[in-house]
Amino acid sequence: MKGVIAAINPNATVIDLCHSIPPQQILQAAIALHEAIDAFPDGTIHVAVIDPGVGSRRRAIAAEIGPYRFVCPDNGLLTPLLRRFELRRFVELDRPQWWRKDVSRTFHGRDIFAPVAAAWSTGRDLSELGTIQTCPLIEISLPAPCAIAESDPNLKRLQCSILAVDHFGNLITNVTRYDIPRDAESVEVQIAGQCLSGIADCYADRAAGQLVALFGSSERLEISVVNGSAATKLNVAPGAGFTIVWKGQRR
Amino acid sequence: MKGVIAAINPNATVIDLCHSIPPQQILQAAIALHEAIDAFPDGTIHVAVIDPGVGSRRRAIAAEIGPYRFVCPDNGLLTPLLRRFELRRFVELDRPQWWRKDVSRTFHGRDIFAPVAAAWSTGRDLSELGTIQTCPLIEISLPAPCAIAESDPNLKRLQCSILAVDHFGNLITNVTRYDIPRDAESVEVQIAGQCLSGIADCYADRAAGQLVALFGSSERLEISVVNGSAATKLNVAPGAGFTIVWKGQRR
Amino acid sequence: MKGVIAAINPNATVIDLCHSIPPQQILQAAIALHEAIDAFPDGTIHVAVIDPGVGSRRRAIAAEIGPYRFVCPDNGLLTPLLRRFELRRFVELDRPQWWRKDVSRTFHGRDIFAPVAAAWSTGRDLSELGTIQTCPLIEISLPAPCAIAESDPNLKRLQCSILAVDHFGNLITNVTRYDIPRDAESVEVQIAGQCLSGIADCYADRAAGQLVALFGSSERLEISVVNGSAATKLNVAPGAGFTIVWKGQRR
Repeated sequence: MKGVIAAINPNATVIDLCHSIPPQQILQAAIALHEAIDAFPDGTIHVAVIDPGVGSRRRAIAAEIGPYRFVCPDNGLLTPLLRRFELRRFVELDRPQWWRKDVSRTFHGRDIFAPVAAAWSTGRDLSELGTIQTCPLIEISLPAPCAIAESDPNLKRLQCSILAVDHFGNLITNVTRYDIPRDAESVEVQIAGQCLSGIADCYADRAAGQLVALFGSSERLEISVVNGSAATKLNVAPGAGFTIVWKGQRR
Repeated sequence: MKGVIAAINPNATVIDLCHSIPPQQILQAAIALHEAIDAFPDGTIHVAVIDPGVGSRRRAIAAEIGPYRFVCPDNGLLTPLLRRFELRRFVELDRPQWWRKDVSRTFHGRDIFAPVAAAWSTGRDLSELGTIQTCPLIEISLPAPCAIAESDPNLKRLQCSILAVDHFGNLITNVTRYDIPRDAESVEVQIAGQCLSGIADCYADRAAGQLVALFGSSERLEISVVNGSAATKLNVAPGAGFTIVWKGQRR
Repeated sequence: MKGVIAAINPNATVIDLCHSIPPQQILQAAIALHEAIDAFPDGTIHVAVIDPGVGSRRRAIAAEIGPYRFVCPDNGLLTPLLRRFELRRFVELDRPQWWRKDVSRTFHGRDIFAPVAAAWSTGRDLSELGTIQTCPLIEISLPAPCAIAESDPNLKRLQCSILAVDHFGNLITNVTRYDIPRDAESVEVQIAGQCLSGIADCYADRAAGQLVALFGSSERLEISVVNGSAATKLNVAPGAGFTIVWKGQRR
């Protein structure tokens, strides 16, 4: 893909965001893309190729969402961004003039997405790259934390889930700062038979080897082992559920 | 290696092709290099360091093959390219003036190949980098599919082999589109006790979890599991054999 | 981190040194950084983020050491460099004007180190990035080979240790060329019940599958298996000890 881009726009700066999304995990890719987006320069074109439907009738698209630009398959990768920013316009990539001459059935990253992104980066308008579409983009389900009723009105319980495991074995969850009120008391994270008291400020707040829950670099609650791997210690994988309980109001 | 290149030619664009070739697997590296070559801009210098003989008497070379330029050990890495393009000229890298001052016995990528490639990229002619050679480059054996005689003249059987396993667990084979005639009927891939009917057009042609054979991004037959890993499911590694049978003519 | 840098200094060339240091292994990171430093162009800013103390009170710093520039946590990462070069001056990164607007407690690489390095690369002086410090930088213990007394005055024995395992499974040790005299005779490396005779010049000096000790690309003694993995064959990990014996003088 980088060779193809360099051949079309030698001045393009290409940055790898992530090569470690497990194959076909669109949800994990969607979250990684969403959480990195703010760190990139204005005008960046984000090319995302998690594409289990490659070669089938799934649409290939280029889209302008809020201030951002994307080239990717229409398979839900943009869902978290569509919830946060306006979909300004998008095209189906249906103009082979921008593609590699021979298009394979298994690697559209190289044959369609990369050359289209390179053409876009040379100053082409979105509308040149394909046909403007009006039917909606595909969205995937984003698991949200779910409040569970308690007989004690002062006790709050949230059913949550693990979205991803990062390089360090930290468990990235579907809980954000806004899901737990600031004045919550006696917060407890219950996962895989373990019980974590309180939300820490940083890893170093706990001793090495201990479990810790804290809000990570993406404002999401992470469950970690200090200087270790929570995924290994708890034997937990993406999709697993866990519970947070506290005393006080649920925002 | 990139630091060395940046010090000699700060304007060079460096692109990583692949860091996941298993150590010492010259055949897999040769295939990966050959299959990526078309995607890179004209004038690219390809530096390939799969180099189990580093520090021994194996030659270090720079070569012009067809429209392409290479810097690598003379150990067979260029074999598939030599079968497809003309070897125009090559030199042995025997001029320490282009090397790092201290040359280790274990990392010529950093100490010889990278600085020579950087010098070449600044406009030096190939003949400046070393002494023009006339004795042939080393070639490795490329396993080719082999037709097996059948008593039924209308039944064709091809003995094939797995060359590599990619990041997704797809099995990359030594079979290309040209090995199976377009009018072949009842094509069957037999591997590890499994039998796959027909060649699919894309992964999405089969249900998740199913085995599928299709021509991949390099025009090679690949054996895959839809949304899964064929290497894991079949417990097959590079070097393993398999069979393709069909009714009709063998081209 | 690269997105943040590109937003501040689009002309910066960013080179990845290494992403495979095991989490929290400051010693391994310190050695990798030290050994790569010579290969990079003058003026390079080295950003090193092995940062188990992120979010705690550990200092974030920028430093000029010998001819080199660094941005990193003050946790010992620079120890081998401080032993070899003069610490010219350093600052604590205490000026949020150079940081991302929202600083997380878990990813200062993105929020502090990357934007500060980018600002530095645009021509800022070190003294603008933070407050000049005079109290010393934190240093970690670097395990040194240790001579063991022998009753035979002509027999020398050195107690050594494994510092790291590289991508190939080579064992990188704390022994350098200068620890074994050139005129040493009958050198023997004793590790995990195995005994290696002599120091080889290159991997190809031994047959495939054999253990070999040689001085690697960093002038350190490495223990390898030709075309294989010494870490797997010997089941040895960083921190393990081993012994070298020879006849003659210890330098």
